Parts: sequence; structure tokens; C-alpha cells
Amino acid sequence: MQIETGALLKNILYPSDLRNLAESDLEEVCKELRQFIIDVVSVHGGHFAASLGVVELTVALHYALNTPYDQIVFDVGHQAYGHKILTGRRDQFHTNRLLGGLSGFPKRSESEYDAFGVGHSSTSISAALGMAVASAYKGETDRQHVAIIGDGALTGGMAFEALNHAGIEKSNLLVILNDNCMSIDPNVGALKEYLTSITTSKSYNKFRDELVSVLAKISKNGPNAYGWAKKLEQSIKGTLLKNANLFESLNFRYFGPVDGHDVNKLAKTLEDLKHINGPKLLHVVTVKGKGYALAEKDQTKWHAPGLFDKITGEIKKTVYDKPQPPKYQDVFGHTLVELAESNPQIMGITPAMPSGSSMNIMMKAMPDRAFDVGIAEQHAVTFSAGLATQGIVPFCNIYSSFMQRAYDQVIHDVALQNLNVVFCLDRAGLVGADGPTHHGAYDIAFMRCIPNMTIAAPMNEEELRNMMYTAQLENMGPFVIRYPRGNGVMPDWKRQFKALPVGKGRKLVDGEEVAILSIGHIGNEVSKAIVNLNTEAIYPAHYDIRYVKPIDEDLLHEVFKKFSKIITVEDGVLPGGFGSAVIEFMANNNYSAQVVRLGIPDEIVEHGEQAELWSICNYDAQGIQDACKKLATIQTTHNQVG
Amino acid sequence: MQIETGALLKNILYPSDLRNLAESDLEEVCKELRQFIIDVVSVHGGHFAASLGVVELTVALHYALNTPYDQIVFDVGHQAYGHKILTGRRDQFHTNRLLGGLSGFPKRSESEYDAFGVGHSSTSISAALGMAVASAYKGETDRQHVAIIGDGALTGGMAFEALNHAGIEKSNLLVILNDNCMSIDPNVGALKEYLTSITTSKSYNKFRDELVSVLAKISKNGPNAYGWAKKLEQSIKGTLLKNANLFESLNFRYFGPVDGHDVNKLAKTLEDLKHINGPKLLHVVTVKGKGYALAEKDQTKWHAPGLFDKITGEIKKTVYDKPQPPKYQDVFGHTLVELAESNPQIMGITPAMPSGSSMNIMMKAMPDRAFDVGIAEQHAVTFSAGLATQGIVPFCNIYSSFMQRAYDQVIHDVALQNLNVVFCLDRAGLVGADGPTHHGAYDIAFMRCIPNMTIAAPMNEEELRNMMYTAQLENMGPFVIRYPRGNGVMPDWKRQFKALPVGKGRKLVDGEEVAILSIGHIGNEVSKAIVNLNTEAIYPAHYDIRYVKPIDEDLLHEVFKKFSKIITVEDGVLPGGFGSAVIEFMANNNYSAQVVRLGIPDEIVEHGEQAELWSICNYDAQGIQDACKKLATIQTTHNQVG
Repeated sequence: MQIETGALLKNILYPSDLRNLAESDLEEVCKELRQFIIDVVSVHGGHFAASLGVVELTVALHYALNTPYDQIVFDVGHQAYGHKILTGRRDQFHTNRLLGGLSGFPKRSESEYDAFGVGHSSTSISAALGMAVASAYKGETDRQHVAIIGDGALTGGMAFEALNHAGIEKSNLLVILNDNCMSIDPNVGALKEYLTSITTSKSYNKFRDELVSVLAKISKNGPNAYGWAKKLEQSIKGTLLKNANLFESLNFRYFGPVDGHDVNKLAKTLEDLKHINGPKLLHVVTVKGKGYALAEKDQTKWHAPGLFDKITGEIKKTVYDKPQPPKYQDVFGHTLVELAESNPQIMGITPAMPSGSSMNIMMKAMPDRAFDVGIAEQHAVTFSAGLATQGIVPFCNIYSSFMQRAYDQVIHDVALQNLNVVFCLDRAGLVGADGPTHHGAYDIAFMRCIPNMTIAAPMNEEELRNMMYTAQLENMGPFVIRYPRGNGVMPDWKRQFKALPVGKGRKLVDGEEVAILSIGHIGNEVSKAIVNLNTEAIYPAHYDIRYVKPIDEDLLHEVFKKFSKIITVEDGVLPGGFGSAVIEFMANNNYSAQVVRLGIPDEIVEHGEQAELWSICNYDAQGIQDACKKLATIQTTHNQVG
Repeated sequence: MQIETGALLKNILYPSDLRNLAESDLEEVCKELRQFIIDVVSVHGGHFAASLGVVELTVALHYALNTPYDQIVFDVGHQAYGHKILTGRRDQFHTNRLLGGLSGFPKRSESEYDAFGVGHSSTSISAALGMAVASAYKGETDRQHVAIIGDGALTGGMAFEALNHAGIEKSNLLVILNDNCMSIDPNVGALKEYLTSITTSKSYNKFRDELVSVLAKISKNGPNAYGWAKKLEQSIKGTLLKNANLFESLNFRYFGPVDGHDVNKLAKTLEDLKHINGPKLLHVVTVKGKGYALAEKDQTKWHAPGLFDKITGEIKKTVYDKPQPPKYQDVFGHTLVELAESNPQIMGITPAMPSGSSMNIMMKAMPDRAFDVGIAEQHAVTFSAGLATQGIVPFCNIYSSFMQRAYDQVIHDVALQNLNVVFCLDRAGLVGADGPTHHGAYDIAFMRCIPNMTIAAPMNEEELRNMMYTAQLENMGPFVIRYPRGNGVMPDWKRQFKALPVGKGRKLVDGEEVAILSIGHIGNEVSKAIVNLNTEAIYPAHYDIRYVKPIDEDLLHEVFKKFSKIITVEDGVLPGGFGSAVIEFMANNNYSAQVVRLGIPDEIVEHGEQAELWSICNYDAQGIQDACKKLATIQTTHNQVG
């Protein structure tokens, strides 16, 4: 659905149109842009509060800079809606996050204005520094390179690595710190407290300006005072001021804090900063959700609220006529508290995803045993390893695609020491609208190659609960439980705990000719497929393998002895994945069978609804049916073993 | 060989023995401990300069603290020799880094005094914080938790993540910053400059102490001056001092800098700090190589010098009667400069391994085109991605096991955007004496599951050169070249460049019955095996596959059509590895053959010489021969496909 735009915005197709306007028009442009975002997101969905918070900054950037020659890298990128609307994508913006539509994040293949593709946090300074160094090498001295990073993203270690490097490069880099005290949830950590101290107390720059006049006044009280004042001034300037600001400690010139909602001031400041070379940081204070009162008030709720009535602020909920299954996330959250109530060794750890992962349930119930460590996956894992050395059983909940950020820590700090850390990989498999940066596609492959790992995936909520229960029964070493984004399949999920023996799968359906082996929730698509196949008199067997590692060899012997046509199904990449584990077993045991592996192909899967993507990848019920029918009827023509 | 110890050290088996000595004995203990390290390392080899630098700190720690109840986490850990000698391992110390001997790094399974296993950088604060939080939870309020981290390791992002979290926990954590301005190579980055400014200018603490007296003196100049001075004092205390130190910005109490070679002062300081709760940082200034003049002078050379004459300082070199093949590292370094001379788009990036990777050759020859970004693998990769967006061809050289630290950046910033970054994975495969933390065991598996990747492995120096040449010919997308630690096989390696078509392998030896498929340098063991097998009238074929991805499907069709007995050989883990790619091809194309996969098994491989470890894992020439003989003679008994 096309949405009306304001009179000024209507004529802005590209930033060059914006730059033709007078400064006095900028406030009105911001108003129209904000309204357009509200209008579109309220009826089409998407991220909300973050983009509202940077409307003025976005307009100021495109007004002051010569984009796309000047390059802007948004960190994370869910705040880039205004940027997209101003850079040639206004009329496609209503397709945001839909299959075939605009990506919810900046994306190089989508626009030359998207200097760098993002999605994960804390990458922008590194990327923009790379661009700046390349420009310096090419002699493009007039070219601007800007990284816009939130105070939450700044806690990610790689942002600090980048600051440390940028501080000794002389290239033209501007880091804009978008300080709104929020990630999806409120930020935590010492850095946040530090930034608050800058913005709430008399500011550093103001202090520096006043220092001279104060010292001058003191000096008037006679020669002694003059001498002491001079000495003090030298000391302060020489030692203290140089290091008085965290960013100046790292060789950045620090400017700010400035009001992030004063578009004219921002545009002027950005214009001025173009003429200052070397690494510099502009501290901008913004309000997440700015201009939409409800969003300003409850920023976590309005991070990505879904559809809503923009007038009343009522968030639209689908009404069902019977109880719906819960989200896997909530099953995790409630189950963790339940387990922790009887096992005092359990603790919970989340890197900045309390609400997304439902760790907030434990944080509220047991505040001394649940930790939000900030956007800091690496630290989250090794902190968990440290806890585990003391007999604590940490449940470290990290989204599958963010776990990529802590891969070395899983190997080096947990697996090599065989520590009993329970990794709950939320949003494993294709996640839907967030797209390629967020798909939890690789975890089975990258976890399976690590020694000592146990890797489990539940087919439903009850299995998730029981796997969590099993993981804390005794010292199990590193224990991965992967489960998908979204709702499960069991409205009646809260059943009594039962241990699920490690390395044991189960036969769900007996059958003939073809065996279907599945791992995790996608087994439900297999169940659907089998119902349909039965109507065509095809009766495949179905095995839910439960544990990718150690894999149930007894069960696999049973399968390979009985079946010569096997289908594996997983919501994960095919190279090195679950199906690969099955054919490794086949090769190791010198079986020979036709094995068709269904899963995510070896290519980038774009965004769209989960069910749409499963269908595209041919592992929804229909895809499984098709594969089974093809296998059940074709004449096998492969080579025979000599 | 057992080495004599000094009179005091002789009676120190455990720290409790040390703690029975008088303070006045500590200097002598340090002297003896230092001498013992020199004596042992000069004849047995190992890391050297780092441990010499922390002799006093190590003695002071075990003297002041109640280890192992109090817990010490060494970062990286190659500085922990003194610690090992003082904690029950003096008489085994000569077995350091040998097969079956002591590990070169702290290791939990080796001693209860090794609170956390290390090897990679920047993990110590996270781990120690985990321990401290667990202790606080258990009510062990008297227990001390210490992380000892170098200024180089502090540039690793996860250390910053940990500081950010620790700053808001009230648990009992002491971070000791071992500031020696060195990693293996001299440190780089803004943080180093900052620390230097603290240690060389009038220190922050001294300034704070003086402030009060100066202001008091100013105040004496009448009521006006008194008023202004008060105002100034409030300003300075309220705003400036609180933030005047980077660590205090992060809520740490900062102490220091103190002389890291004054053992009594250190012991006293550590004793005092036990009684101060909450997060605190002690800044200790040390000299890497302290007490061995040559090592103090050339710290990079003496990081791990090999065997040497401790009197003359002459490093012992094996004398050969004919030219030896070069190290793969040096082939990389020289070849990169050669390529960069004709391709102005090439740049080189190393995260703190200029000498180890031989990137220092380009850094010297082309300083504006080669970057040491500090211990910062994540930043190194995304910085490279930023460069690549501008048409630069970055050769980003990272040890295989350290690449685990930047896994998300490879996926999210390079592969998803299909950017032409060339990843040179040095020390891929089993690395030898450094052991499990440093084995480059997993890279084939964790890289192969990522779309858009090209993955190559050279069998010799010429192939390494040609793969590097190929990777920069045109936009190839992400391009991995993995090669091992140590010497190649071609004394005459510097040959003219030749492109090696991507995704094409080669047949090296024609044969019958069995085909051996190898990837990378381990193909040389296959060649040796075949020579021996031929003497027994067994004539296997040998294919060097060259590219794990895209794999040469034409060649594999040839193999599977001709052979039903296949052996794959790789210097990497079996689950999801190269052999797995071969059997995935087999399954996808409905071939059926007996495939025996040789490589690193799914377990932790300990330290030892490379050849010893290959032998243990059964993929040296002997292991390959044995596998081939077994396969060539047994009757195949597997299932036939229905």
C-alpha cells in the first residue's frame, strides 16, 4: 500500500533533492519524514523506535555530506529507515522486509547509498576505517567517511578494537555516537554509566572553556596566586585534560554532546567537522522513539511493535478462537526459572537480549543469578566458562547468528576444557524477515566439528524443556540446544520434566521403502508431509534424531540396515550439517544407500516469512513430500560398489 | 635433562613453601627462578622473554595470595613458566611442550593452580570475572580473583567487553595490567600511546594528591581566590577526575603505575589490594626479557628463540649440507610484496603477527600498504571488508586458530557481501608444540559451510604462490588459502606465477583399485606412502584436489566412476571437513563407494611435534599406507543399494 508523503518529502527522491532545500526547510522535512515512517510502519510493520530517534541526524547527514561519494555506515542498521526513504527507496519502502522487497537493513546490493551491509552490531567503525584508509591511499582527501554507532553497539569488543586502530591512522574518519541509552533493552555496563556522567554533569568541553577564565580570575589575586594558577593550568592541560575523556585517551578528537534532535545545529556541526582531519567522534544525544510519545515511554516494546493503530497506539493482535502454542523463547524463559528454583547452581547469561530471549523472566525472578552483559557475545561465553569452573551451570542464551561472534570462545574456553556450559541457541534456522544477516543457518555445521560438544534440537516445546532439564542433571560438558524463532506446536506445553538420554533419538513413525530423518522443529513439517503421503499410499518412516552429536548410532544402524532410501531434513545449511553427519556415519560403517539431504542450500537465503523461505529451500512439508515421492518411485541408477 | 636449582628454589615445591620464606628472601627467589628459566629454556626451548618479564610479579602473587584457593588467570599464558615452576611442576618443567610433557600454557587438567586454560589472547578478565561472580554468589567474600593481562592483549575486543561488565559488578576482581609495550612484536594502537602517556608523564595519582595542596595554597590569597579555588576543586573532582583515567571511566579503581621488578613492593601492594573490594586495576610496568640482556634488547627475536647458548646468547641453528625449503610463512611474505609491486590495489593486514606471519616484509617494503592492527582479529577482517568495498584487494593474514575469533566477521561482513578479501590462514592443521589451543584444526569445516567462499590449500610453496596470484587476478569474492606451520618441500620455490583455475584439482599419480584424494601439504605424505606401497606392488592413484570449495566435480566424477575404494586425507578435523565434502558429492550424485577418511579425529589432540601428531592421528605416510593396504585387500561387505 502506497502511503501519502508530505509536500517537501514528495519532491525528495535522492539526497541531491534534499540538498537543494534551504536550511530553514529542514525541520519540516524531519517532521514529514518522521510521519512517513510512522504511517508506513504502523500498517506494514518493522523496526520502529530506532529510526524515529535518528530522523534529524539522518537528514543532517545527507544535507551536509555529499552522499554517496561521502560514505555513511550505519551500525546494526535497523535505524536506517529514514536513510532508505531519502535515498531513492521511498516508493518501495512499504515492501520493507517482505519477500522480494526492501531489506530491513542497509545492503550494498540494494543501493549505492548503502556503503556497507549490516545487521549485527559493532562493525561500523572497522568498515568505515577501511574505506577511509583506502580513500587516503587513493588521494581522495575530500572524501568523508562516517560510522554511526549506538552506545549499546559500542560495548561490542570489535568497536573498541577499531577505535584503537583508528586512533593511530590519520585518515578521515568521523564516528557519530548515537547515545540513547538503549539497545533493544536498556543498555548496561560501565560505559553507559560513563556516557551518562558526561551528558548529565557539566560537560568536559564546557569545563575546558571555563578553565581559562577561572584561572585568569584567580591570577588577579596577586603574584602568588598567579604562579600557582599557572602551575595548575599546566598540570591540567598537560596530563589531565589530554586523558580526561575516554575517546581522547584513544587519540580521537571528541565533540559534544549535542542535541540529536536539533537538525540545523547537527547539519552545521557536520559541515564544520568536514574540515577537521583525522579521527574524530561526535557525541549525539537522541531519544529512541522520538516524536511518538508511546514509543519514547516504552522503548523496548516499541523497538519492533508489529502493526499498530498510529492514533491510539493500540498494537494489533491476532485474535484466535483457541489457545495458541507459546513462543520457544517464552518456554525457555519460564523453564529456566523453574529449573533454577530446584538447582541453585544454575545461572542465566544474555548478551543484551533480555526481552528477545525471554531471559528477562529470570532477571526479574532471580536478579542475582541472571546477567545481561551488554552486546558482548565473546565475553558472555568466557564469563560463562569462568562460572562453570566454579561448579555453576550457566545457561548462556545467544541467538544462533550472534553465536558466530563467540566461536573462538566456544572452542578455546569451553570445549577444550570440557566445561558444562549450556548454550541455548535461540533463532536457529531461517529467521524470516530479518534476513541473511540474522539467519541461524550455520550453527550445526560450525558446532559439530568441535570435540566434546553435545548438540540437541527439540522438535517441540516439551522437548526443549526436557533438553534443558537434561543439560543440568550432571556435568555434561558443553551442551548446545538450538531452537527456532517463533511459536511452537504445543498449547499444552508445561509438562513434567523427563531426561532425554544424550545421544539417543526416537522413531516416530514406522514405515517402508523410505526413511525420513529429521532434527529439531522441522520434524513437524515431516509429520505433515507424511500425513499427505499416506493418502497417496506412500508410507515413509520418520525418525527424530534429537541429538546431532553424539548421534544415535544404534538408531542409524537400524535405519541403514532396513532402508536404502533415506531423506535427511534440517533447518540449517547442507555443507557439514546434520545430513552430512548421517552420511559420515554411512561412510564410516560402510553402508551404502541413496541419501537425499534437505536443508538450506549453499547460497545466501534472502528475507521473507519463515514458511516462504522453507518452501523456497524445499524443506517445508511440500518439499519433503516431493523429495519422498521422487525417491520412492525412481529406479536407482547409481554405481554399484565393486 | 634435569637442571640444578638455586638453594631457595630447591625447597619450593608449592606456593605454601614460598609463603614460609621471609620477605627479605624474595629477591633471591626471583634471581634463582629467573636463572632456572634461562637454564631450562636455553637447552629445551620454549617461550622465553615473556616469562622473564613477570618473574617478580609471579613470586609476589603466590607470596601475597592464598593460591590455589585464590585464583590467578594468566592471559595468553606463555608468560606462566615461573608460575608452573612454583606450583608443583619444577621437576617436570624440562618436559615443557614435548609430547606427553607439560603444556606450554596453563591448563586446568595439569594443575589445580591453573585456574583457567589459555593460549589465545584477551580471555582472562572474562574468565576471572566469572569466578569472582560465582564466589560472591557462594559467599566466599575473602577469595581473590586475579587476571594478568598484557597491554597487547588488552587491545583484543573481548577484554574491553569484560571491563565494561566488570565495572558494574561488585565482585572481587583484580586486573593486573602487565605493561611492557610488547606482544610478540611491539604493540600498536592508541591504547599503547595512552598507557605510555600515563607512565611517562606526571602520573594521575600523583596529580590528584598534589591538587589538594595547590588549591589550599591558592585559597590563602584572599576570599575571592578562595571562592574560585573551591569552585575549581569541585569542578575537577566532580567531572574531570572521575573520568580522568580510562579505567576509572569504566568504574575500575586504578592503582599504579608500579615497578614490576620490585618484588617486595609488588607483594606489599597485592597484600593491600586484597582488602579493597570491587573491580580494581593495578598497572605494573615490566620489561619483557628482564634479566637477560640480549632478550631485553631484541624482544621479538627472544620471544621464543629456540635453543641457545645461555652464556654467549648464540642461537643454535641446525647446519644443513644442502639448501633447505623455506617456511611457508616466508614464501607468503615475499610473494605478497612481489604481487603488490605489480598490483597497486593489494594491501596487507595482520592482527599483531608481523614477524610470525612474515607480514613484516611488506610492512618494511610498503609501509603505507601493510597494517598491523593489534590483537584484533575481528577488526582485521571487517577493516579488510571496508577496504575491499573500495576496490582494494586485502590479503588478511590470520593464523587458522585465531581466525575462530573473527568467524562472524567472515560470514557477516565478507561472505554475505561477496567481497574480495583474501584470507591467508597460516598455521592451518596441527601446529605442534603449542598444542590444542593453537591447532588450526577446524577451519576447513567452519569455512566450508559458508556460501560464496573459495577455499584452497597448497601442496607446496609454488602452489601457495600461485594460489595467492590467482586470488588477486580478478574479483574472486572471499578467498581462503590455508597452509601449515613450518617448512615447505621446495628449495627452488621462486618460480614464475601461473594461475590455478578455481575449483580445479589435478591427478598426480595414475593408479588402480584405490584412489587417494588429498588436500594441501599433507599430499606430500601421500606421495611418500605411494612410493612405499609401490614396493609392495600396490598402486593407488593420487589426486591433489587443491580447492575444497568449489570442489572439482569433474575430477570427482572421474574418480567415482573409476574407483570404488577411496581414501581422503586432510590435516583438519573429520566432521564436516574435506573428506565430508567428498562424501557429500558422492551422496548428491548417487555414487556408492567405500570411502575412508583420514584426518584429525573428533577429539582434542594434545601437543607434540607435528610429525608425531600426524602419526598419532594416522595420517602420516605410515598411516596412509596402512589404510591403503587394508582397503586394497579386504573383501567389501557393505550393504548393496536396493
